[in-house]
Amino acid sequence: MKKNTALRSDIAWSTPEAIGVHGYDLCHDLMGEVNFGDMAFLEVTGRLPDANESRMFNAILVTLVEHGIVPSTLAARMTYAGAPEAMQAAVAAGLLGLGSVFVGSTEGSARMLAAALPDGRGGQGAQPDALLAGLAEEIVKNHRAEKKIIPGLGHPIHKPLDPRTLRLFAIAQQTGFHGRYVALMQCVADAAGAAYGKPLPINATGAIGALCCEMGLSWKVSHGLGVMARAVGLVGHVLEEAKQPMAMELWHRAEEEATAHSRGKLHGKADGKGG
Amino acid sequence: MKKNTALRSDIAWSTPEAIGVHGYDLCHDLMGEVNFGDMAFLEVTGRLPDANESRMFNAILVTLVEHGIVPSTLAARMTYAGAPEAMQAAVAAGLLGLGSVFVGSTEGSARMLAAALPDGRGGQGAQPDALLAGLAEEIVKNHRAEKKIIPGLGHPIHKPLDPRTLRLFAIAQQTGFHGRYVALMQCVADAAGAAYGKPLPINATGAIGALCCEMGLSWKVSHGLGVMARAVGLVGHVLEEAKQPMAMELWHRAEEEATAHSRGKLHGKADGKGG
Amino acid sequence: MKKNTALRSDIAWSTPEAIGVHGYDLCHDLMGEVNFGDMAFLEVTGRLPDANESRMFNAILVTLVEHGIVPSTLAARMTYAGAPEAMQAAVAAGLLGLGSVFVGSTEGSARMLAAALPDGRGGQGAQPDALLAGLAEEIVKNHRAEKKIIPGLGHPIHKPLDPRTLRLFAIAQQTGFHGRYVALMQCVADAAGAAYGKPLPINATGAIGALCCEMGLSWKVSHGLGVMARAVGLVGHVLEEAKQPMAMELWHRAEEEATAHSRGKLHGKADGKGG
Amino acid sequence: MKKNTALRSDIAWSTPEAIGVHGYDLCHDLMGEVNFGDMAFLEVTGRLPDANESRMFNAILVTLVEHGIVPSTLAARMTYAGAPEAMQAAVAAGLLGLGSVFVGSTEGSARMLAAALPDGRGGQGAQPDALLAGLAEEIVKNHRAEKKIIPGLGHPIHKPLDPRTLRLFAIAQQTGFHGRYVALMQCVADAAGAAYGKPLPINATGAIGALCCEMGLSWKVSHGLGVMARAVGLVGHVLEEAKQPMAMELWHRAEEEATAHSRGKLHGKADGKGG
Repeated sequence: MKKNTALRSDIAWSTPEAIGVHGYDLCHDLMGEVNFGDMAFLEVTGRLPDANESRMFNAILVTLVEHGIVPSTLAARMTYAGAPEAMQAAVAAGLLGLGSVFVGSTEGSARMLAAALPDGRGGQGAQPDALLAGLAEEIVKNHRAEKKIIPGLGHPIHKPLDPRTLRLFAIAQQTGFHGRYVALMQCVADAAGAAYGKPLPINATGAIGALCCEMGLSWKVSHGLGVMARAVGLVGHVLEEAKQPMAMELWHRAEEEATAHSRGKLHGKADGKGG
Repeated sequence: MKKNTALRSDIAWSTPEAIGVHGYDLCHDLMGEVNFGDMAFLEVTGRLPDANESRMFNAILVTLVEHGIVPSTLAARMTYAGAPEAMQAAVAAGLLGLGSVFVGSTEGSARMLAAALPDGRGGQGAQPDALLAGLAEEIVKNHRAEKKIIPGLGHPIHKPLDPRTLRLFAIAQQTGFHGRYVALMQCVADAAGAAYGKPLPINATGAIGALCCEMGLSWKVSHGLGVMARAVGLVGHVLEEAKQPMAMELWHRAEEEATAHSRGKLHGKADGKGG
Repeated sequence: MKKNTALRSDIAWSTPEAIGVHGYDLCHDLMGEVNFGDMAFLEVTGRLPDANESRMFNAILVTLVEHGIVPSTLAARMTYAGAPEAMQAAVAAGLLGLGSVFVGSTEGSARMLAAALPDGRGGQGAQPDALLAGLAEEIVKNHRAEKKIIPGLGHPIHKPLDPRTLRLFAIAQQTGFHGRYVALMQCVADAAGAAYGKPLPINATGAIGALCCEMGLSWKVSHGLGVMARAVGLVGHVLEEAKQPMAMELWHRAEEEATAHSRGKLHGKADGKGG
Repeated sequence: MKKNTALRSDIAWSTPEAIGVHGYDLCHDLMGEVNFGDMAFLEVTGRLPDANESRMFNAILVTLVEHGIVPSTLAARMTYAGAPEAMQAAVAAGLLGLGSVFVGSTEGSARMLAAALPDGRGGQGAQPDALLAGLAEEIVKNHRAEKKIIPGLGHPIHKPLDPRTLRLFAIAQQTGFHGRYVALMQCVADAAGAAYGKPLPINATGAIGALCCEMGLSWKVSHGLGVMARAVGLVGHVLEEAKQPMAMELWHRAEEEATAHSRGKLHGKADGKGG
């Protein structure tokens, strides 16, 4: 067992008269000076954003906050119904479902693009070109060979185009983040559409994955953005559940329907029981 | 069992071409237009803030994001050490400790002030006066009689004054939120100091409790602000743990020290065991 | 800030060749020798149960394992639907709802009975008598005065009697745990029924609260029993969800119904937005 | 969006007078009749165990309950320190770290063995033979080629042999579960030891992985056993933390050490801030 490695954190410190966060004076440099999204940027990068980074980053977080009635908000509401005295636990329950199925495609597309274009930021031009088209062909081919879904493409509801993608890319144009990764993601969407014979446009998670690459944020950070933004949305759902509940009603309906076929039926026998 | 109450949520909806959040068009009214803190305000109040509300509210959230190495960040780091593949679970583990001991005093002071002054917003003048002094005396007397700690006063490190309180109240002056609840909280601090014979200045949680009252936000919302802000800070700690870990080292030290007294000692006997 | 208090745990230790748990040799005294319920008894009391304690304690845990489709199992299933790669998180999400509304009445009745009869175990006879009747009258009177629900009485489905209560008390008779606390709980049920003019029989949580008192287990332990038993049941529900899912279907129905009234409606305006 | 799939659960139902669990009458077939481990077996398999299954299964669960001061118990204690009113949340926080690093090797070895020997239960003899040796060689070769750790082998403390493995396999001999999967796991340990030039004996997670295969339990169930057993142990640690705390002390030490290098240092500047 290894021992006596020093413990070290570079995030924050306190003295009687001041608090430092990533080297900034919390009270004078941050409170009243930067918005909540900039503070989040500071937490994940260790520095404050410039004006373009601030606009792009806040837009990404705003996109991720609210998804309406989905499994994670239902988990939070179910939890609140049982433990209304611990609102933090209801929010936590909602966060726990932000795994591979829903939120995973943001980090999936960020990983895919960063792996294909390890040093692509600010690259040789932000237009699709033969190099990007070739990389995209290879990505699509490899995913098909391994029977894996290409992350960040298609959407069950938002058809033919995801309106968030259009808006995010417009903001990226205005702030200087519409670069090589966005172009590569577009090439991937085109190549996938051709390969599968149906439109597979970039959805919001694919757009955010590409924009995280543009901003130099790792795939791990991209997952973290989803987690922090959804925490905000989950607080909203818990507050609504407190005033206008649906968990109990949904429970009663589900219980009634799911067990009707067996209610009152027993097949157990006294023998065959363990000690 | 009651049945067939309609399920209803007024937070968000989706159609193929648009997403509505609290009546706003996500893509056109919110993304790129409002910052993450304003989006949080929308989630907890159902409307966007004006400029003063936005500055005050963002300042409150920024204050709450980061608390350095504390039990909740250690819980998150310990969880990440065991399940690095599920970052959302590490953040959730950190949120779970935001209960009565640390975060509870924000909602505690908000409840205390709102109960004493049910309609005090924008009241008859923001200066301490005889009415507020009387309410404060009563609050202190009641807490002493029930042997309860008055929430929002004193701090183990930030002495003699909590620098965050000074800054929050300065921003409140600038934005029009330095009103009756802030004055009442100051009266409570004075009365408590006199009663206990030692300085008990308003700490950051007491300041935020008072400012939530000024902004018309319920104590439940005040708790929610702590939860969402700390989720942002917890993402920062999980990302640091991934690069510069301390959980394993802390574990090994704790295990070594905590069990040294008993290691190798057995007193169990074969008899007296249950079936 | 206090410093250098020694860290100490008396639960377990490891050496290369042995593991001690509460003073027992895990491999020789426990594995293959005691059942899972006895191990749980050891964890919460620090010793192994005798045969009567083992039977009563295992029966209590068995009672608490499974409650069918309820909010906590639905929260677990919703979480599994989003993060199937982290089963532990789905179980944890289910546990988070075991708060004041559902599980709280076990610890509530244990606290109520222990407070009324601080040293009642093995008392002066296990039959209801004038002393117990008087204590029960007072309990009912106090709860009515404070408009609080008496924990452990009545059940929305199991009428007129909760079959689990009958069975638990029968096992208590056989194992020597049908004592003063059970008698007091029965007196409370009788007094409450008279006061409210309707039958309010002891439900399973009230029975378990009383039996925890009989076994010398604190109310905090009684809550812990619910948590550990439900963890077992939640694993069962997560495994069923993996094979025979209901979360996605329930989500789609809830989303469809809850947002139909507002879908497509916008009232947001460009003005009034914060910075 | 698919619609109107029926909701169905086959685990439990309630009527006013009875409760069914996997087809058994809870009050008459289970309470007082089976122990907590048998109830857990019922939850994960849908039937009660026979006497041999009961002994083996209870022994596995007993093995998994307690691991002393480890990251998951520290996460639970840290959480309890902040939210002592929500014990269930402290247990949940502890469960959240039961991911790939610690608990994953049980399911990892179960998956590995089941894939190599899809129909090996009760096979052609429980002794290592040429077939098993060949399968083991291939497993070791493949793991080395992919630079993956072979799950279930070696232990940082328990050397040269894990005492739990010896005991589990002895119980397996007595109960009829010392079959082809155990033999294959032994061949894997031998082949790995030869390949890596150092002893790599089967640890407890590897033994339990093999025994789950012997009992016909899937790798998903094997993960579930760890989760339910640790929930029991976590309740024990939370109860100890309530009486004999270490979280606050550990926090203060960690905070002091980790931030000493930077305390009081600021490098933030007013420029470069985002909007």
